[in-house]
Amino acid sequence: MDDDMESGNLGPYKDRPRTFPNMRSKPYTPLIFRILMRMNVRVVFILVLLGLGAVFYVGARTSPIIVFVFTVCIISFLISIYLTKWVLSKDEGPPEMVQISDAIRDGAEGFFRTQYGTISKMAVLLALVILGIYLFRSTTPQQESSGLGRYTSAFITVASFLLGALCSGIAGYVGMWVSVRANVRVSSAARRSAREALQIAVRAGGFSAIVVVGMAVIGVAILYATFYVWLGVDSPGSMKVTDLPLLLVGYGFGASFVALFAQLGGGIYTKAADVGADLVGKVEQGIPEDDPRNPAVIADLVGDNVGDCAARGADLFESIAAEIISAMILGGTMAQRCKIEGKCPFYVYPSGFILFPLVVHSFDLVISTVGIFSIRGTRDTGSIGAMEDPMAILQKGYSITILLAVVTFGLSTRWMLYTEQAPSAWLHFALCGLVGIMTAYVFVWITKYYTDYKHEPVRTLALSSSTGHGTNIIAGISLGLESTALPVLVISASIVSAFWLGRTSGLVDDAGNPTGGLFGTAVATMGMLSTAAYVLTMDMFGPIADNAGGIVEMSQQPQSVREITDVLDAVGNTTKATTKGFAIGSAALASFLLFSAYMDEVAAFAHVPFTQVDIAIPEVFVGGLLGSMLIFLFSAWACSAVGRTAQEVVNEVRRQFIERPGIMEYMEKPDYGRCVAIVASASLREMIKPGALAIVSPIVVGLVFRILGFYTGQPLLGAKVVASMLMFATVSGILMALFLNTAGGAWDNAKKYIETGALGGKGSDCHKAAVTGDTDGGSAVMANTKYSLSFFLANLFPEVSAMLFQCFCFDDIGLQCGRPIQRHCGAFSSCPYQNACNDNSRHGSCLSLRVVHNEVYSPDCTISLYYSYLLRM
Amino acid sequence: MDDDMESGNLGPYKDRPRTFPNMRSKPYTPLIFRILMRMNVRVVFILVLLGLGAVFYVGARTSPIIVFVFTVCIISFLISIYLTKWVLSKDEGPPEMVQISDAIRDGAEGFFRTQYGTISKMAVLLALVILGIYLFRSTTPQQESSGLGRYTSAFITVASFLLGALCSGIAGYVGMWVSVRANVRVSSAARRSAREALQIAVRAGGFSAIVVVGMAVIGVAILYATFYVWLGVDSPGSMKVTDLPLLLVGYGFGASFVALFAQLGGGIYTKAADVGADLVGKVEQGIPEDDPRNPAVIADLVGDNVGDCAARGADLFESIAAEIISAMILGGTMAQRCKIEGKCPFYVYPSGFILFPLVVHSFDLVISTVGIFSIRGTRDTGSIGAMEDPMAILQKGYSITILLAVVTFGLSTRWMLYTEQAPSAWLHFALCGLVGIMTAYVFVWITKYYTDYKHEPVRTLALSSSTGHGTNIIAGISLGLESTALPVLVISASIVSAFWLGRTSGLVDDAGNPTGGLFGTAVATMGMLSTAAYVLTMDMFGPIADNAGGIVEMSQQPQSVREITDVLDAVGNTTKATTKGFAIGSAALASFLLFSAYMDEVAAFAHVPFTQVDIAIPEVFVGGLLGSMLIFLFSAWACSAVGRTAQEVVNEVRRQFIERPGIMEYMEKPDYGRCVAIVASASLREMIKPGALAIVSPIVVGLVFRILGFYTGQPLLGAKVVASMLMFATVSGILMALFLNTAGGAWDNAKKYIETGALGGKGSDCHKAAVTGDTDGGSAVMANTKYSLSFFLANLFPEVSAMLFQCFCFDDIGLQCGRPIQRHCGAFSSCPYQNACNDNSRHGSCLSLRVVHNEVYSPDCTISLYYSYLLRM
Repeated sequence: MDDDMESGNLGPYKDRPRTFPNMRSKPYTPLIFRILMRMNVRVVFILVLLGLGAVFYVGARTSPIIVFVFTVCIISFLISIYLTKWVLSKDEGPPEMVQISDAIRDGAEGFFRTQYGTISKMAVLLALVILGIYLFRSTTPQQESSGLGRYTSAFITVASFLLGALCSGIAGYVGMWVSVRANVRVSSAARRSAREALQIAVRAGGFSAIVVVGMAVIGVAILYATFYVWLGVDSPGSMKVTDLPLLLVGYGFGASFVALFAQLGGGIYTKAADVGADLVGKVEQGIPEDDPRNPAVIADLVGDNVGDCAARGADLFESIAAEIISAMILGGTMAQRCKIEGKCPFYVYPSGFILFPLVVHSFDLVISTVGIFSIRGTRDTGSIGAMEDPMAILQKGYSITILLAVVTFGLSTRWMLYTEQAPSAWLHFALCGLVGIMTAYVFVWITKYYTDYKHEPVRTLALSSSTGHGTNIIAGISLGLESTALPVLVISASIVSAFWLGRTSGLVDDAGNPTGGLFGTAVATMGMLSTAAYVLTMDMFGPIADNAGGIVEMSQQPQSVREITDVLDAVGNTTKATTKGFAIGSAALASFLLFSAYMDEVAAFAHVPFTQVDIAIPEVFVGGLLGSMLIFLFSAWACSAVGRTAQEVVNEVRRQFIERPGIMEYMEKPDYGRCVAIVASASLREMIKPGALAIVSPIVVGLVFRILGFYTGQPLLGAKVVASMLMFATVSGILMALFLNTAGGAWDNAKKYIETGALGGKGSDCHKAAVTGDTDGGSAVMANTKYSLSFFLANLFPEVSAMLFQCFCFDDIGLQCGRPIQRHCGAFSSCPYQNACNDNSRHGSCLSLRVVHNEVYSPDCTISLYYSYLLRM
Repeated sequence: MDDDMESGNLGPYKDRPRTFPNMRSKPYTPLIFRILMRMNVRVVFILVLLGLGAVFYVGARTSPIIVFVFTVCIISFLISIYLTKWVLSKDEGPPEMVQISDAIRDGAEGFFRTQYGTISKMAVLLALVILGIYLFRSTTPQQESSGLGRYTSAFITVASFLLGALCSGIAGYVGMWVSVRANVRVSSAARRSAREALQIAVRAGGFSAIVVVGMAVIGVAILYATFYVWLGVDSPGSMKVTDLPLLLVGYGFGASFVALFAQLGGGIYTKAADVGADLVGKVEQGIPEDDPRNPAVIADLVGDNVGDCAARGADLFESIAAEIISAMILGGTMAQRCKIEGKCPFYVYPSGFILFPLVVHSFDLVISTVGIFSIRGTRDTGSIGAMEDPMAILQKGYSITILLAVVTFGLSTRWMLYTEQAPSAWLHFALCGLVGIMTAYVFVWITKYYTDYKHEPVRTLALSSSTGHGTNIIAGISLGLESTALPVLVISASIVSAFWLGRTSGLVDDAGNPTGGLFGTAVATMGMLSTAAYVLTMDMFGPIADNAGGIVEMSQQPQSVREITDVLDAVGNTTKATTKGFAIGSAALASFLLFSAYMDEVAAFAHVPFTQVDIAIPEVFVGGLLGSMLIFLFSAWACSAVGRTAQEVVNEVRRQFIERPGIMEYMEKPDYGRCVAIVASASLREMIKPGALAIVSPIVVGLVFRILGFYTGQPLLGAKVVASMLMFATVSGILMALFLNTAGGAWDNAKKYIETGALGGKGSDCHKAAVTGDTDGGSAVMANTKYSLSFFLANLFPEVSAMLFQCFCFDDIGLQCGRPIQRHCGAFSSCPYQNACNDNSRHGSCLSLRVVHNEVYSPDCTISLYYSYLLRM
């Protein structure tokens, strides 16, 4: 069975009848496009111009840097429109291809609509909750005086949350929109020329990469400029520009929220469809992959689009937005501490540190565009012999991009980070950027080393298959576990050296302490992400090539065409693995930065210094234990969601094979739609539980330990416990993600290596063992969990926590509760603080006194304090 | 094939010829016994009496508590001798059983000799290294004045290290010695009565449990008393009793060192033999488990003894020793801080806090003996219908033990922990103990819930097998990951509540701060381990029953006998899983305690306060990242060691089946010895790499960050980074161990559940999928890694680090390097500290000044400081 399954010896494809249902439904156009299409073209044009004018006006009033960012983003959007038009102008090929492509598109768009319908409802609900929290929370006099009253801050937060969610949704939609249209065009082009097929896939990927990165940048820039002008920042008595980035946290949270559910839903969809289709099709019935007789095959191909394209778009959007905002917060904090002031011809000094991330990513758009256009179509004949290695072509583009990144990064640091206080600081930060760029390069290389069968590890894994299934599984797990070592060493070296470079940059605070260390790690993270758009292009290339291969297979094209798409598909797998490694690496490098931003946010809002997370305190250690555990629990729930959904698919496919025995003889057509519907509804249902865990757990832990901290007299305990939880969760998540990613990739490629004829080749016992590793243990569980993990930790967590910081920190209870506490304390004659309360009622309160001096307390008194606080909550 | 493999339909056993080689070699007697046996009995008796007298004399000069501990331990040893005599007096059954048993014994003892030969060489080498470090390290005047000169402390440390290593080796040997003798007696008894077989297995397990716990207790007690008398503790001008426990660290380290390699070697042996035997025997040839035709079957049975019995004995010995010493250190520190003084009729007050752990474990010996003797043989007929559930019998014994533990724990706290300063403190600590005992109970219950097929999770896992291999693997991984949640919540609650109970105990330091918190968690850990001897008995029961089953199977006993041993084997699996859960839980609870002890040790030796581990410092965070990564890398190397060894076994077994085709027809006998030899030499070779990682990595990380800390002006950076590394490693290790333990157990039991007839029963597709999960993914990798992990983290790490603390901390550089630094600094005119150096040369040094004020420094100056320090090293 296995032999047939892998070699596909089922007779020539041409001989089989073509029995595809016409599943073309009415093309789906989003509501906003429908409204736009009904309007007069001129009106739309004028509206767009007016909008752009307003944006540029606000930008010009803020800073010339913002105008530069706007200009680059808008030019990039124009280029991306050109790329789409170019891709869509290619022909769709013969009707049988279009039929399949339409079925995939319908499935993907149907799922997307339902999924984002659910997500948007949840987002609105969460927005109301946030609104409620902000309306009922207390504000300090300083906040009021700087124009940030209760209503203003509630409005700002909710608005930026919703904008972030909307932009993230659009980013996801765009990724999927182009991929379901490009796939058939790549298949069609593969009939003519390999190079053209490659170019179409790259340009389609490039379109969504540019839109995703551009939207993240322009969204932050518009919010920043709007708040700047609206709140009259930097005019006397109002907010300082260095505090402004804290208001943007809502945007990142909105993006994270959508990305969480987009990835969970999409990930469960794609993995469940994949496992379900393989288990019955490949293993039980022995038909090849992507065979039209498998009822789950369309669901599988749809999964690539919703799982890889849409979810990855939302993921990268969120990563970039979170990293930009965190770096801006750190830049603002540092500029404030170092008292960087003064003006140069173009901008006010502190703005340079704050807006630096936006400039880096604007350059990212420029250089990645150059990289994408460097991949040109030639008039080759399409024969496999004459075909260049597509991987080499893509890598050449990446090399160009990375060289340009080094140059533009140096320019940006000189332009933005030069100050008179520390004339050589910009050079130190440029080196930090170089550290980041080198980390990116090394990460890609390490992942390639562990997953490519040209190297030792995968060959050893393949060899271990020769002694059976058991040794294959052990060797794969061992390889995956071992592959965490080098990346962690690289990340450790990067963090320490970037911190050191930043620290010695010469920027010092009032007391003369060096302060640039954290900003150094932020700059290194930006360096690592400075080629994000090109990397995302390579990544999006994968699912498009995969889908194209599926369409070619299902429409039974000649062998030569399938060879071209097979090569593209294999390259897509490699780029997917390496870019996943890259994504994990940047999340790891960013983790310390995001974590520091969280601490800065808490400190800024709570008006108490928050610089230490001491795990020698048992509660804080317990927080770490819980954080790591949550990663395991989250993975458990994500895995079991995939497992349960796959079981439903298996049962449905089995039922169809039994009820319609003609399917196997091509006499009856399978009901693809039912499988699509089952996977779609199951993955929507299953995404809620792990998603809720990610959002609710930090809040619950924070609240529990806040109350415990109140009761035991430890201020900020809640915030500290959550901080430690984030740290441990991040570390566990990075390792788990690296382990799962590499093990999955290596199993897959060990199988491919044996299929090239090594160790007995296809159909040998050795191959069967390798297939076990790949199908059973490998890709099935691994990939899905990984996505969810790396984002969950590094990005969503801090933002949830920062948004709801008020729940975790003790903040200014002392100031606010002075009177009621005094009253309550007075009622307990045994309270040792009674006198202190009475004496200090004007200057503070007995609570703050107790907290500051860390004294023992009487339980009676504490209980009364507790209730008095509860009453005020 | 699978059908035959599982049901063993190969004709009645009686019909097959019995073809066992006579492998009986000369019985091996350790050197020390041989010397003793050559001596006159009376001389030996007098020597023993003299030794006892000396021990009691020293004990009496130390404290009446020590005399009590000695008495209990010696009585327990007498009881254990009675238990051995009782077990050995049972008959060994027919010659075919004895033959097999002898083959197992020869294999086990041969491996043990070679393994412990290697380990003892390494231990002597390490002792020399430690001696070197201690001889060349600097001592402070305080140390000299308290009699702890360079040579004294070097001698003390090395002697206690070697004693710890020796005791750990004996503990391991004893566990194996009795198990290879009891197995055949259990098989033989199973022919007569199930109850008698159970009783023999329990008493054999009880013997080694009592010896292991008793040795750990008496070893610490002898060292304590010897040092007390020798150093003249508590006499004026010499060492204080509260500092004494710090000298015992070497003992724990010695135990850990031996346990590390005992477990690695034994674990690799047992898992490789198991996987190798199953892969060819069960999967390829389709013969049942423990079939005499499988050449690897003896290696498999030997593995149970060296992997489970010997390694587990060393493991528990080391856990208990480490936990006793850590709790003593914490008790000493607390007594010192709280200035607990005064005398009661029996002892000096602070001794009560220090010696409390020894008393708890003495009571543990008493109550566990009662528990073991509560399992009595009855004159039942041995028929399966009349047979009681052995699990219920063992659980009844456990309930008795736990009830007695509550009573004795209350008595010990009242006796030892009552002070006049805080009259209610003992009650708080008794409650801490109760928390620990309850945690033990809950842990056992949770593991049972997740691994027993009477409950929901395993049934769901079995159901998921019905849709194929892939969904089975996914469901098992998901179950394992999910099962970490409840234990972590329980541990978190225990740590926080025990800390809280201890904190509110009323013990305060000079400044009035509550100080009992950490000691509260220590008491909870002792509570959890207060039934350790009985738990170890239940655990040792497992491999003995397993071996007995193997002997019955191989000697082809009638069905009724096999049914009895099968039931015992199944019960053994359950107790093994639950006691593993218990071991992980106690390691988790102890982790915070061990960690605090490490910090106390560093602080005591470095003479600087060390109370914070702030992971907001990037280097400390990086330490955490590296710590978690090391767990992954260690697991990777342990896994790949198993994989490689298993491959060698597979190739050997395949070779034998090919070269001796008569084996399958019982015409030729397989060469069992070759498999044993291959596994033994491979596992000895493979244990070195992961073992070295565990020992070397904290030293390397500590040294690197110590140098970095020196260069960046952060005192104690090395020690802090290592502390954070420990914390993260502990957390990751606990989670990994829980995950692997539960997943492995659940897969095994899901298969067993289906074998009971559910979901299609044996031979169905569903069963095949479950077998995949069990053999391939499950037990193979899981169990081995787990052991190594939980011990590695919670125990070995802190002790290595504490032993070599001097490498990690900046200690008194400031005081010692004053002059050379000044000289070097003076040579650099650009150094901003030049003046500071000159001004402060009498009171300290420029370095300590810089460190204290955390100022910026000139690189030139730092380099000179660095070299001047290096020169002094």
